[in-house]
Amino acid sequence: MSALKNDLLLRTLRGEKIERTPVWMMRQAGRYLPEYRVLREKYGFFERCQTPELACEITIQPVDIIGVDAAILFSDILVVPQAMGLEVQLIESRGPVLPDPIKTHRDMQRVRVPDVHETLGYVFDAIKLIKQELNGRVPLIGFAGAPWTILCYMVQGKGSKTFDEAKAFCYTQPFLAHQLLQMITDTTIAYLKQQIKAGADTVQLFDSWGGLLSKDDFENISLKYIKQIVAAVKDDAPVIIFAKGAWYSLKEMADTGAAGLGIDWCITPQMARQFAGNHVALQGNFDPAKLLSPIPEIKKEVKQMLAAFGNKNHIANLGHGILPNVPVDHAKAFVDTVKEFQHS
Amino acid sequence: MSALKNDLLLRTLRGEKIERTPVWMMRQAGRYLPEYRVLREKYGFFERCQTPELACEITIQPVDIIGVDAAILFSDILVVPQAMGLEVQLIESRGPVLPDPIKTHRDMQRVRVPDVHETLGYVFDAIKLIKQELNGRVPLIGFAGAPWTILCYMVQGKGSKTFDEAKAFCYTQPFLAHQLLQMITDTTIAYLKQQIKAGADTVQLFDSWGGLLSKDDFENISLKYIKQIVAAVKDDAPVIIFAKGAWYSLKEMADTGAAGLGIDWCITPQMARQFAGNHVALQGNFDPAKLLSPIPEIKKEVKQMLAAFGNKNHIANLGHGILPNVPVDHAKAFVDTVKEFQHS
Repeated sequence: MSALKNDLLLRTLRGEKIERTPVWMMRQAGRYLPEYRVLREKYGFFERCQTPELACEITIQPVDIIGVDAAILFSDILVVPQAMGLEVQLIESRGPVLPDPIKTHRDMQRVRVPDVHETLGYVFDAIKLIKQELNGRVPLIGFAGAPWTILCYMVQGKGSKTFDEAKAFCYTQPFLAHQLLQMITDTTIAYLKQQIKAGADTVQLFDSWGGLLSKDDFENISLKYIKQIVAAVKDDAPVIIFAKGAWYSLKEMADTGAAGLGIDWCITPQMARQFAGNHVALQGNFDPAKLLSPIPEIKKEVKQMLAAFGNKNHIANLGHGILPNVPVDHAKAFVDTVKEFQHS
Repeated sequence: MSALKNDLLLRTLRGEKIERTPVWMMRQAGRYLPEYRVLREKYGFFERCQTPELACEITIQPVDIIGVDAAILFSDILVVPQAMGLEVQLIESRGPVLPDPIKTHRDMQRVRVPDVHETLGYVFDAIKLIKQELNGRVPLIGFAGAPWTILCYMVQGKGSKTFDEAKAFCYTQPFLAHQLLQMITDTTIAYLKQQIKAGADTVQLFDSWGGLLSKDDFENISLKYIKQIVAAVKDDAPVIIFAKGAWYSLKEMADTGAAGLGIDWCITPQMARQFAGNHVALQGNFDPAKLLSPIPEIKKEVKQMLAAFGNKNHIANLGHGILPNVPVDHAKAFVDTVKEFQHS
C-alpha cells in the first residue's frame, strides 16, 4: 500500500500542528453529486454498498470532484443491524424501515452477534479496493453507528423525531436494552477492527441520536458503550466520535481517549473547545443549510469558522450531512475556502 | 373576575419564594386524555379552536382531570399565519400544511399585518369564557409562536427536521426574511396584548425551532424579534420564552426581561441556572418520553429534578409536549409527585 501523500487529517488527529486545516464533508458521497445520482438510479442502495466496485467509485467521487482531504467509505450504519439478523429496507426517499423491530424478550432471539467476515465481508473488500484505487492520495475513514443510535432503529423500526419507543424500551426493559446494546457493541468492535485491518486509516462513530438523551441517559445508555468501542479500537487507529447534539458530554467524550469529536453548528467553536478541553481534535461545524447561501456568503462564514477554531486540532466539516439540494459549486466553495485559508 | 386561589405560577414568575413548586405540562390539553379524544373525533382542529365553548372545555380538562397548577389556552401557533393571510391545514395525524408557502417577493404580497380583533377575535372570546369557567382556580397561560418558528412554517410549508428551505430563505433573501419577521412580530405583539386584555395571566412564546440555528443566527433571526415582543408585552403580564434547544443563548434570553425560560431535558438544571443567571424562573425539563417509564421510576426521577432545581424560580414542566401515548395515570403521577414534594 502506498504511503499517504496527504495525511493532514491523520496528523490533526494526532494533535500535530499542520500547515493548513484538513476538510471533508459528512455525506460527501451523496445525492448533491450528479455522478452519484447516475449510479443511484441504476442500482439499489444495498447493491451499491455490497458491490466493492460501486462502493469504491462512489467513495472516491468527492475526492476527484470536490477535492476533499479524506474519503469516507460509502456504506450505511444499518448494515450492522442487518448483519445481526434484522431485515433492513433502505429506500432513500422514504428513510430506513426495519419491518420487524425489537420490542420484547422474544424478539431478542432473532438477534445475534455475527461473524463479521461472513456477514460484512463485502465492506472489507470494498475498503481494500478503495485503498488501492486511492493510491495514497488521501486517508480513508471507516465508520459505524454508535450502539444507542443503532438500538433506536432496531427498536423504533424507522426514523423518528423523538425515538420515544426506543427510549421507552430502555426505560421499561433496561435489562433487555443493555443486553442489546452490548451485542451491538461487540459486533461494532469486531466490525471496526476489521475495517482498520482492511485499510481504514481512522474510524468515526456516528451517534446521530445521542442528543435526544439527557446527560445522565446519554452517559448510561450511549457513552458507556462508546467507551468500550474506543478502548478496543483506538490502538489500531484514531477514533472520531460524533454524538450530534450531545454538547453537554463533550468532556466525558474527550475522556474516552477518542482522537476527535464531531460537533454541530449549535455550539460555538469557543464553547466546544472549553467543554472538550485542549487535547482532542474538534471536527465541524458548518451549518449544512448555509451551503444554500450565495458563494461569497459561504466564503465569509467559512473563514469566520476557521478563525474561531484556530490553526490546531481542527478538522473542517459540516455539522451534519450535506443536503441533497446543495449546488456542487457551493460544496466546492466550502472546501476550497478551507484549503486556501491562511491562519494569521 | 375572581381573585386567583392558586397563584403559585405567577408568584414563581415574580421571583417569590413559594410553598411548593408549581406544575403544568406542555400539550396538557391533548391526545393522551380520552376526554380530549372524544372531542377530537367529533370536531375538526379549527372548529375546536374557533368555538369558544369547545376551546374552553378542552383548556380546562387537564385542570379537572390531572390537577395542574395552570391552564394553557387550547389553540395553535399557526392561527397567526392564518390571520396574516396564509391557508393553514391542520390535520393532526399528518402535521401542519401551508399549501402556498412564501418563497419570493411576489408571495409576500399575500401577507398582511391583520387587525387581530377581526381575525383572531375567537381567541379572545375563548379566553374570556375560560377565565369565567376557571373561576380563579388556576391562572391561564396565553401563547404565540416566536417569529422565527412561524416563518419556518410560512416558508417551508410543512414540518421538517431541518427547516432548510426556511433557513435558505433567510440566507439568500435576508431583506425579505426580516420584513416577514417584522410583520409576524407586529402581529404577535398585538395578539398577545389582546390575549392579556381578555384575561391571560401570563404568556408563553414558543420558539420550537430556535435550536436549529447557530448562536449567531438565533440572535439575529430569532432573538432580535423575541426581544421586541417581550419589551412590548412584559409590563402587561410576565412572559415565558421557550426556545427549544437554544441553550447557548439562555443568558441573552434572560437579558430580554422575560420572567421565565423554558428548557428541555438536554441541559441539566445546574447548567441551565449557570447560563441563565439567578434572576429568571426556569421551566421544565422532564423528558416527555420518561412518562412512558413505570410510575415508581417517574416518581424517582421527578424528585431528582425538583431537588436539582431547588425551591425557588422553578416551574415544573416537561421539556417538550406530552406524548399522545402516555397513560393518564403516568401524567398524574408526574403532577402529583411535584405537588407532594417537600424541599429539604
